[in-house]
Amino acid sequence: MPRFSARVQVSLRPSVLDPAGEATRAAAARLGVDGVTRLRIGKSIEVELEAVDQDAARAQLELLSDRLLANPVIENWCLEQLEASGGTAA
Amino acid sequence: MPRFSARVQVSLRPSVLDPAGEATRAAAARLGVDGVTRLRIGKSIEVELEAVDQDAARAQLELLSDRLLANPVIENWCLEQLEASGGTAA
Repeated sequence: MPRFSARVQVSLRPSVLDPAGEATRAAAARLGVDGVTRLRIGKSIEVELEAVDQDAARAQLELLSDRLLANPVIENWCLEQLEASGGTAA
Repeated sequence: MPRFSARVQVSLRPSVLDPAGEATRAAAARLGVDGVTRLRIGKSIEVELEAVDQDAARAQLELLSDRLLANPVIENWCLEQLEASGGTAA
């Protein structure tokens, strides 16, 4: 079955506060980097999966992202770099 | 001062175990997505900052990534999509 790799980017919705990001921004100023105007921390999930074709891979990744990787109440997600990867093991 | 935006991708080094990723992979199988062969969870940090030019912005982002955003003992980081963003407030 063909293999695919992809990256799912999960970010907090703009209306959701990000205290960890804000703390990191404050720490940046203490480190001497004082021009940081915005800093938001999200997740980046690297996935490799087997699927019959790219459309099937995309459908599975969308299901995963919606149900498992992101919390749609507070997070947005975005599928990136979906591509066939190396092995097409029989 | 010109503004720049960038994204820092932080991922666990390949030799470091990722129990959260492994648990998510197991949950994917229970959800009916059983072709997932690899799943690793990293961080994705969106940064906006002011700097005199793009080289200065890059230097500040590299310092931030190395000292604050990633733990170099167990994580790799990579700077993406560094570009000038909208406002060049005087």
